[in-house]
Amino acid sequence: MSAIRFELIKTCKQSGARLGKLYTPHGVIDTPIFMPVGTQATVKAMTPEELKEIGAQIILSNTYHLYLRPGEKLVEKAGGLHKFMNWDRAILTDSGGFQVFSLSDLRNITEEGVTFKSHIDGSKHFISPEKAIQIENALGADIIMAFDECTPYEADYDYTKNSMERTLRWAERCLKAHQKPDKQALFGIVQGGMFKDLRQESARQTVKMDFPGYAVGGLSIGEPKEIMYQVLDWTVPFLPENKPRYLMGVGSPDALLEGVIRGIDMFDCVLPTRIARNGTVFTSKGKLVVRNAEYAEDFRPLDDECDCYACKNYSRAYIRHLFKAKEILAARLATIHNLRFLLKLMEDVRRAIMEDSLLDFKEEFFRKYGYTNE
Amino acid sequence: MSAIRFELIKTCKQSGARLGKLYTPHGVIDTPIFMPVGTQATVKAMTPEELKEIGAQIILSNTYHLYLRPGEKLVEKAGGLHKFMNWDRAILTDSGGFQVFSLSDLRNITEEGVTFKSHIDGSKHFISPEKAIQIENALGADIIMAFDECTPYEADYDYTKNSMERTLRWAERCLKAHQKPDKQALFGIVQGGMFKDLRQESARQTVKMDFPGYAVGGLSIGEPKEIMYQVLDWTVPFLPENKPRYLMGVGSPDALLEGVIRGIDMFDCVLPTRIARNGTVFTSKGKLVVRNAEYAEDFRPLDDECDCYACKNYSRAYIRHLFKAKEILAARLATIHNLRFLLKLMEDVRRAIMEDSLLDFKEEFFRKYGYTNE
Repeated sequence: MSAIRFELIKTCKQSGARLGKLYTPHGVIDTPIFMPVGTQATVKAMTPEELKEIGAQIILSNTYHLYLRPGEKLVEKAGGLHKFMNWDRAILTDSGGFQVFSLSDLRNITEEGVTFKSHIDGSKHFISPEKAIQIENALGADIIMAFDECTPYEADYDYTKNSMERTLRWAERCLKAHQKPDKQALFGIVQGGMFKDLRQESARQTVKMDFPGYAVGGLSIGEPKEIMYQVLDWTVPFLPENKPRYLMGVGSPDALLEGVIRGIDMFDCVLPTRIARNGTVFTSKGKLVVRNAEYAEDFRPLDDECDCYACKNYSRAYIRHLFKAKEILAARLATIHNLRFLLKLMEDVRRAIMEDSLLDFKEEFFRKYGYTNE
Repeated sequence: MSAIRFELIKTCKQSGARLGKLYTPHGVIDTPIFMPVGTQATVKAMTPEELKEIGAQIILSNTYHLYLRPGEKLVEKAGGLHKFMNWDRAILTDSGGFQVFSLSDLRNITEEGVTFKSHIDGSKHFISPEKAIQIENALGADIIMAFDECTPYEADYDYTKNSMERTLRWAERCLKAHQKPDKQALFGIVQGGMFKDLRQESARQTVKMDFPGYAVGGLSIGEPKEIMYQVLDWTVPFLPENKPRYLMGVGSPDALLEGVIRGIDMFDCVLPTRIARNGTVFTSKGKLVVRNAEYAEDFRPLDDECDCYACKNYSRAYIRHLFKAKEILAARLATIHNLRFLLKLMEDVRRAIMEDSLLDFKEEFFRKYGYTNE
C-alpha cells in the first residue's frame, strides 16, 4: 500500500481549482500548498519551529546537495532526514535530476544514467535512476521523486522526444528500485518540453505506471509564463483526479494562482527565500526592495496586512539597517516574511476554493499586488 | 535622582564575590551578569525573544557603530534603541571611545576630542565627550558610558598618565553634557594602563565625581591575564561598595570567574558570539571546534550538560554539516549555545555566591573545563 493518501475535498465551481488533503507519514497537508525549500537539510535562515509558526506543513530538500554533503549514509546513520534536521512534519526530496543538469559541471548523459562533476569540489560522480532512489530511500522523505532529465527549454523536438522517452524508461527503473513504497511515496514526473504531443504522451505513459502522485517538471526554467500555463493546460487533464499534482520550481504569487486554477496541488521554489536574503520582500501591494534608500526612515512594517513575526515587531527602517549592516537578522526577518506571505496566500486560496470564489480572489489580489507576470 | 539603583544582596564569604540587583528603567538585573553584545542594534544571529529565552537581562550596543550607521538621529526618530530593535529589557551603550581607537583610521586625539575616519566609508568624523553623550542620549540606553581613551597596553608611563588625566577631564565634561540623568545612568571609566599608582589615582578621581556606576576600562586588550587580574586587585578596592562595577570587554569563562571573585558585577564581550560564527563552542569540558572532521558522525549534542535550544534538538554532526554548507542556522545554533553557556555560568556563579561556595564552584568548573587561561 502507498505511503500517502490524497483526498479531494472539493473543486472550486468558479475556477476548477482543487481543495484536498494529503495524508503522509508525517502529518496531513492541506492542498493547494507551497513547500519551502530546505536545500541542504535546512530552510535557509529558519528553524523548524519558525517554519511551523508560519504554517509550513511540508518542506522540500535536495537529494543532489545532500548526496554530496553530508552524504546520504551519514543522514541515514543520524536516523534519517527528519531526525537529522529536527523536522517532524512531511518532507519531499527531489531526485537530484534538476541539479545534476543545472549545477554540476561536465555532465554526460547515457541510457544508464548521468556522470557529472560536483559543484563543490569537482569530484566525479555517477547517478542512475537506481542510485537516485537508493539515496532517497536512505534520506527517508515522505515523498520522493523519480530521476528524470529536466529537458532544456530551448531543446528541439527530437532532443525533447528522446529525453522524454528516456525519462519514461528511467521512471520504470525508479519504480523497480524503490525499496520502501509503504513508507515513502514515489512521484512520477511528466516531461516533454514545450511540445503538446510530447507532454501528453509523457503524461499518459507516466500515469500508466500508477504512481501515488505526479509532478509536472521541466517548467519555470526560463520560458515565458504564458508557455508554462499553456503546457499545464495541455498536461493536467491527463493526470488522474485522485492523485496529488505537483508543479516543480514555481513560487511567484502569479504563477501559484495560475497553477492552482489549472488544477495543481503542490508547489516549491527557492524564490521567496533567495530574494529575501537579497533584501526583496513580497507585500500585499507588490514587491518591495527594503534595502533601498527610500525606506531608511520608513517606520511602517514590511506589509501592514501581514501577521508574521517580522511585520509585528520591526520597521522597514530597522530591517533596511540590518541589510546595510550585513546582519544575519536581516535575512531571518525577510525570509520569515516572504515564506509567510506565500503560505498565507495559499491559506487564502484554499478558503476561496472552499467558497467557490477563487477567480474573485485572484482579481482582488492582483488589483492590489499588480499582475506583473514576472 | 539616578536612573538606576544598585542593591548589594550579599558578599560570598568564601571568595569575596558580590551578589546584587541592579534596578534599571527596563527591568531588574541580577548581578554578576554577562551582557551579550549587539554591536549594530542586533545581537548577531539572534532575535530578542531568543535572548530572553537564554536568560539575557541586559545587552550592550556600540555607539560608534550606531552613530555611523544608521545614525543616532534615525534611532531617536524610531523611538529610541529599545523600540528600534524590539528589545524591552535593559541596554548599555559604550561611548564609542574603544572603537574610535581600535577600528577607525587616522585618528587624531586632542584635548577637545578625537578626529577619525569611518571604517565603513572613510568619511571624516569628530567625537568629543559632549558629542558622545549627545549620541548616547539620542540612543536612549539605560546605562551609558563616559567617553574615554582606551590607553594601549604597550603605552609607557608618561603617555598613560597624560591619557588617564585627559580621560578624567573628559569624564567631567561627560557629566556636564548628560541631559537625561534621571533616565540614563552615566558610568565613569577607570583607566591608567598597567600602572598601579595611575589606576588608583584614576579610580579615586573618577569616584569623586560620583557616578551611579564604574567601569574598569583598558583591560582585555592584549595584556596577559595575570596582569589584568593584578590591575583589578589594585583598582577595585577604590570603588564604592554601593555602586555596580563593570569590567569592559571580558567574556572568557576563566576571566569571568576571576573578575567576579575580584568584586566585578558586570561583563560584556563579543567573544562568545564571534567564535560561535566561526564554529567554536564552549562546553562543560572545554572549547570544541565543531567544524572539525572528528565531529562528522558525532550525534551527541554540543554539550550534554547544556539546556539550550541547540543542545536539546541538534547533533554535533548536523551543526558541523551546517557550518560546512555555510548555512545561517549554523551561526544561529552556535550563538545560542555560547551565549547560553555564559549566561548559565553566571547563574551558577550567583547561586554559588549565595551559598558562600564560589571558590569550590570555580575549582569544580575548571576541573572539567580545563583552566586554559586563554
